[in-house]
Amino acid sequence: MTNGPLTLMQQTSALRQAIRNQEHTGPTSGLATGAMQGNVVILPKEYADEFLMFCHLNPVPCPLIGVSAVGDYRMPMLGEDIDMRTDIPEYYVYRNGEEAERCYDISSLWQDDMVAFVLGCSFSFENALSQVGLTPRNIEEDVNVSMFESSIPTKPAGRFYGNTVVTMRPYTPKDAIRAIQVTTRFPKAHGAPLHFGDPSSIGINDLAIPDFGDPVSVKEGEVPVFWACGVTPQLAIKNAKLPICITHAPGKMLVTDLLDADLAVF
Amino acid sequence: MTNGPLTLMQQTSALRQAIRNQEHTGPTSGLATGAMQGNVVILPKEYADEFLMFCHLNPVPCPLIGVSAVGDYRMPMLGEDIDMRTDIPEYYVYRNGEEAERCYDISSLWQDDMVAFVLGCSFSFENALSQVGLTPRNIEEDVNVSMFESSIPTKPAGRFYGNTVVTMRPYTPKDAIRAIQVTTRFPKAHGAPLHFGDPSSIGINDLAIPDFGDPVSVKEGEVPVFWACGVTPQLAIKNAKLPICITHAPGKMLVTDLLDADLAVF
Repeated sequence: MTNGPLTLMQQTSALRQAIRNQEHTGPTSGLATGAMQGNVVILPKEYADEFLMFCHLNPVPCPLIGVSAVGDYRMPMLGEDIDMRTDIPEYYVYRNGEEAERCYDISSLWQDDMVAFVLGCSFSFENALSQVGLTPRNIEEDVNVSMFESSIPTKPAGRFYGNTVVTMRPYTPKDAIRAIQVTTRFPKAHGAPLHFGDPSSIGINDLAIPDFGDPVSVKEGEVPVFWACGVTPQLAIKNAKLPICITHAPGKMLVTDLLDADLAVF
Repeated sequence: MTNGPLTLMQQTSALRQAIRNQEHTGPTSGLATGAMQGNVVILPKEYADEFLMFCHLNPVPCPLIGVSAVGDYRMPMLGEDIDMRTDIPEYYVYRNGEEAERCYDISSLWQDDMVAFVLGCSFSFENALSQVGLTPRNIEEDVNVSMFESSIPTKPAGRFYGNTVVTMRPYTPKDAIRAIQVTTRFPKAHGAPLHFGDPSSIGINDLAIPDFGDPVSVKEGEVPVFWACGVTPQLAIKNAKLPICITHAPGKMLVTDLLDADLAVF
């Protein structure tokens, strides 16, 4: 034991232990800052190859950072002790394309044919934006980021298809240009935005009514800036109508031992 | 002599020779593509330190790539044979802040106390944009780029002050995001844009009436994107009311032996 402040690796390990023990079942935003967090999709092997192809064809909304072996609930490339059955604060279980239940532990649901996927998450670039003084409005207002189903189609793969879900963060044009530069450094966390300005040109009718998450205020002189979102695969999963599929609850992510900086470019 | 197509270095050398012989007195846009071209400012030593500081304080509109020794009309860091008195297709001569004359050779005007400055030019990033399919509208329409005096102030240095001149190229938001990424690679050619969208928020009233250059069409769904421009120092030079100052004519640049790629980052 040291007497000083915890290192990031110690924070990450302690947080994951608390999640495993169901002492922490809430959002992971702002915790163990600097450690990469991930979106989670767990599904039967029968669908795994198609889903892998879906991620390959749609690397911006679905930036793959980890895949398990078939039936193996470990994820050693993201953390030696990770157990995908217990290490996410809350799980959503989909059956036949519908949300069926929520739980904190999926040990009883785990099947020998299951494959776990982990996709990068915008928390990585939100930290980077905050560090250069471009704190996202959702963090300033302490709410979930606004998410919208856009009219931008993904490239389908087998039974997986659907539109791209986008997050929205408002900035002045000058700050948006800087935000584009900063987020370009994080291709494994959705990278640069897909769109800015007129929401209707990507099929969004009302910024005040997000499809997921919370609305945020857009100030005079600001334009909405839209990034691809890790909720995109959840739409494709619903469309694929799998007999069973398990995801993380939005905002309650897998905390990994990778650093945001590890997968940054430039 | 080779029988194949000319190498870039041979094209550059041949073009500079033709300019020196006054066989080429026109614009240099699209010539010796890949070789870096530069804006030129020549002024007496009395003002040189202040102008150097002006460039230092305003590196985006004034990206310095070469400075001569006092009284020395050579510029060996940009090309061994460069003669700043003859190697620009056309010169503008300012006296007391007013344009006084235009000429193709300033040998008779050169003074022992003169210092020449060369600043990077947007032609470098226009080539890069074209290479990724984002050909600037001014190139598509074969006109000079639209330039506007914005309300964005430069940082003053001694007698040099004034607003930033910007160029405008229209793009869809999706293409603008890519253009921001591409031009970020060229900090010595003005780099990323300063603004996009509403022109009035940077003091521009009418895109159809540029202050310099030609208007270009802006299509449905496009937004104007504004980059800092190498004409910015010419406003500051007018404001400084130097007894004499010589610049290149807009669009008729110094062609250097540097490659655009030499000063690109990432």
